[in-house]
Amino acid sequence: MINRQSEDQMAGGALDQMIKMLAAMPGLGQRSARRIALYLLKKRATVMVPLAKMLLRAAEDIHDCDICGNLDTHNPCRICSSARRDSRTLCVVSHVSDLWAIERTASFNGVYHVLGGLLSALDGVGPQDLRIEGLLERAKDGSINEIILALSATVDGQSTAHYIADHLDKEQLTITRLAHGVPVGGELDYLDDGTIITALNSRSNAA
Amino acid sequence: MINRQSEDQMAGGALDQMIKMLAAMPGLGQRSARRIALYLLKKRATVMVPLAKMLLRAAEDIHDCDICGNLDTHNPCRICSSARRDSRTLCVVSHVSDLWAIERTASFNGVYHVLGGLLSALDGVGPQDLRIEGLLERAKDGSINEIILALSATVDGQSTAHYIADHLDKEQLTITRLAHGVPVGGELDYLDDGTIITALNSRSNAA
Repeated sequence: MINRQSEDQMAGGALDQMIKMLAAMPGLGQRSARRIALYLLKKRATVMVPLAKMLLRAAEDIHDCDICGNLDTHNPCRICSSARRDSRTLCVVSHVSDLWAIERTASFNGVYHVLGGLLSALDGVGPQDLRIEGLLERAKDGSINEIILALSATVDGQSTAHYIADHLDKEQLTITRLAHGVPVGGELDYLDDGTIITALNSRSNAA
Repeated sequence: MINRQSEDQMAGGALDQMIKMLAAMPGLGQRSARRIALYLLKKRATVMVPLAKMLLRAAEDIHDCDICGNLDTHNPCRICSSARRDSRTLCVVSHVSDLWAIERTASFNGVYHVLGGLLSALDGVGPQDLRIEGLLERAKDGSINEIILALSATVDGQSTAHYIADHLDKEQLTITRLAHGVPVGGELDYLDDGTIITALNSRSNAA
């Protein structure tokens, strides 16, 4: 109580609130929020005000793509509307961050569908909470050949993949999932049993 | 190059710029900036816009205290203007974060003077770059009894302390520094030699 009060007294309400809001960001705590607050107040004109204005502009300008759920200033997003992307191959991911991760590899030239989460009985997330209806709709019109279910190898990820596969027309579509196995650069010694078992069962010819 | 381009393409300039600006905060990198950007865009109305507006307001409202250099919405700051603080004891710190650290202990009831840095020949920081002139001015008028030099136990901290002590009127003022020694809870085994030597030389009666 004394700490709280003295902190309030020393920092002033505005500064206190600033640190509190920064500390609420994912990955930040009190200490890192204080550090960022001091940094910003030292660079008011060059960093703090431009950052705030950029955030206001971004909140206005960046939208969910109506087709795939990607974040972009354009709608449909630049991936959906690009003529250079292969719109017959659709990669299903749970979050935009997964889409970014795949884009960074520059090894996939298809289009995406961002679910916005995973089915989870525990957290009460049902099909209606995700962008699954839209996915089934996209898959129906016959322009898509393959659907890659790039979902996490977790219980929620796999049950979401099953649910989607169950509702897709398997005669019209090839449905694939990411390979499971030893991560590149991974040491066997540090891998969990499940990964080793999967990697063994899915072994391929080395020659 | 491919990565950069594809990231730009997928994210759109605005999102790319947002991540870049967030990644420039101290303690944040690309990965944590991406995470925060996604979090903000998911909570546009409840977090992102209020955060931006708060930053604009804070940049406007929070000022350096003209007397001590503390950050506050009030000027002079609430510590300098508080009737409950002992203005005869002045604690000199290098940064506002040090002032906060001391305030959190709720064990000091004097006032402060924030230098805004430390003297550093290597980084080209001279006395004119710090709030040293103001400190000497404050010390002159006879209302201060003790000056505590609460500066880091580093080369720069100690040379700054020496410089300040040299320029203060030692007949009028008691000049003190923080005790050096074993940190509370610290294990001897993990301490550097310098700290152990200082702690030995400054040993006190245990009885």
